[in-house]
Amino acid sequence: MKKEFVVIGLGRFGGSICRALSDQDMEVMAIDKDEDRVNEYATIASHAVVADTTDEATLKSLGIRNFDHVIVAIGDDIQSSILTTLMLKEIGVNNITVKAQNDYHEKVLRKIGADHVVHPERDMGKRIAHNIISNSVLDYLELSDEHSIVEIAANNHLLSGKSLIDLDVRARYGLNIVAIKRGNDIIVSPQANEVIHHEDILIVIGADTDINRFEKKAMSS
Amino acid sequence: MKKEFVVIGLGRFGGSICRALSDQDMEVMAIDKDEDRVNEYATIASHAVVADTTDEATLKSLGIRNFDHVIVAIGDDIQSSILTTLMLKEIGVNNITVKAQNDYHEKVLRKIGADHVVHPERDMGKRIAHNIISNSVLDYLELSDEHSIVEIAANNHLLSGKSLIDLDVRARYGLNIVAIKRGNDIIVSPQANEVIHHEDILIVIGADTDINRFEKKAMSS
Ligand SMILES: Nc1ncnc2c1ncn2[C@@H]1O[C@H](COP(=O)(O)OP(=O)(O)OP(=O)(O)O)[C@@H](O)[C@H]1O
Ligand SMILES: Nc1ncnc2c1ncn2[C@@H]1O[C@H](COP(=O)(O)OP(=O)(O)OP(=O)(O)O)[C@@H](O)[C@H]1O
Ligand SMILES: [Ca+2]
Ligand SMILES: [Ca+2]
Ligand SMILES: [Ca+2]
Ligand SMILES: [Ca+2]
Repeated sequence: MKKEFVVIGLGRFGGSICRALSDQDMEVMAIDKDEDRVNEYATIASHAVVADTTDEATLKSLGIRNFDHVIVAIGDDIQSSILTTLMLKEIGVNNITVKAQNDYHEKVLRKIGADHVVHPERDMGKRIAHNIISNSVLDYLELSDEHSIVEIAANNHLLSGKSLIDLDVRARYGLNIVAIKRGNDIIVSPQANEVIHHEDILIVIGADTDINRFEKKAMSS
Repeated sequence: MKKEFVVIGLGRFGGSICRALSDQDMEVMAIDKDEDRVNEYATIASHAVVADTTDEATLKSLGIRNFDHVIVAIGDDIQSSILTTLMLKEIGVNNITVKAQNDYHEKVLRKIGADHVVHPERDMGKRIAHNIISNSVLDYLELSDEHSIVEIAANNHLLSGKSLIDLDVRARYGLNIVAIKRGNDIIVSPQANEVIHHEDILIVIGADTDINRFEKKAMSS
């Protein structure tokens, strides 16, 4: 059975969730009190409804209880966000994800029973700071506080033209190259004799300290 | 030499960048026209300045030209964002990253010479939609349009208690398990006889279609 979602608040964040869920063929009911925003999503979501979700009767009449997951993406109006969440909880919605504007907002949301609280701007700020500090780390997945998988650009004379044996990052840095991205291809578990191209992107797993060491060394000069 | 950054606009997004850069011991000059916001970052950033960055004389007097990278995190006031970017470019700043509110905003920013344009709410919406659709995929790194590395929770009787040979995801799904996250440990390149624990998180690389297939199969019943 298809999962059914409700997205409340069609700003940039809520709108993007609505679009991404719809792209994956999910059933999505999109709600905003602003008619223009609702019209924007009329052809994207399965249903698009103009409604003020702080009104309990409205929420009930929409049958929101029957949906699998409700995302509250109301931002600036913290009071509406809290009130909407409270009412969703009372109606008996199983799974509620709410965007928080700050730590205080998060605290209240958790108290009243939000299942997941997200801070999109804060989290993306962190990610982008990461990318900005390093010229060579293009993207990353944080595995733990101390370990990551990172994408490292090989466009550097210390990397390109070398084989994986030449580099021997395992012995020298304790790192593993789990894949090489070459154009549209992904070479998983590359062989030791694989030669790195200038345009390659290395997918590397290891401790953050080792990754930093490798990055500094590989990128120096 | 330490890299020096300027962050203009201390909302949630800009504030988070400022904090993350400062956490990594970078030199950061934090600027906002709102005094309260500047005060919030006075002890976090190296310098915190109240200034309207649409004023050219102000920008020049701050010596912004000498910084390595300027991040413009002004959101709602699109005109200020564009004007600030334009002036940074004219002053001769080398590296400018700007937050865009929509596609039109991005287009203008690129035309006037912004080096990087980011859409934090939109990107995070996509990420969170991904996480919401799947109960077992905890986090992911998009390698290409068709390949990803994903974190899959093993808390499922079809996975836990099995060895990697039992599962044989390579033959059956074309996937590779590049690591296992077990509490605070990361087991990189796990052996074939490694037995999966109920609390493990598998780090899996492969084609998205294969990952979806594996996830559906592993998670069914
Ligand atoms: N009570 C409510 N019922 C329904 N929709 C609401 C309610 N209150 C606010 N909204 C809607 O929530 C949406 C998101 O509000 P917000 O102020 O966070 O917008 P935004 O700044 O564009 O968000 P973003 O940070 O995602 O870009 C708006 O479209 C607004 O109309
Ligand atoms: N011309 C300007 N000069 C300096 N700072 C500015 C200027 N215009 C706006 N700002 C500041 O930019 C910051 C970010 O503005 P924005 O409206 O995007 O806030 P926000 O909605 O809190 O952002 P976020 O989406 O990151 O949560 C504000 O603190 C604002 O004072
Ligand atoms: Ca993670
Ligand atoms: Ca806003
Ligand atoms: Ca925002
Ligand atoms: Ca990526």
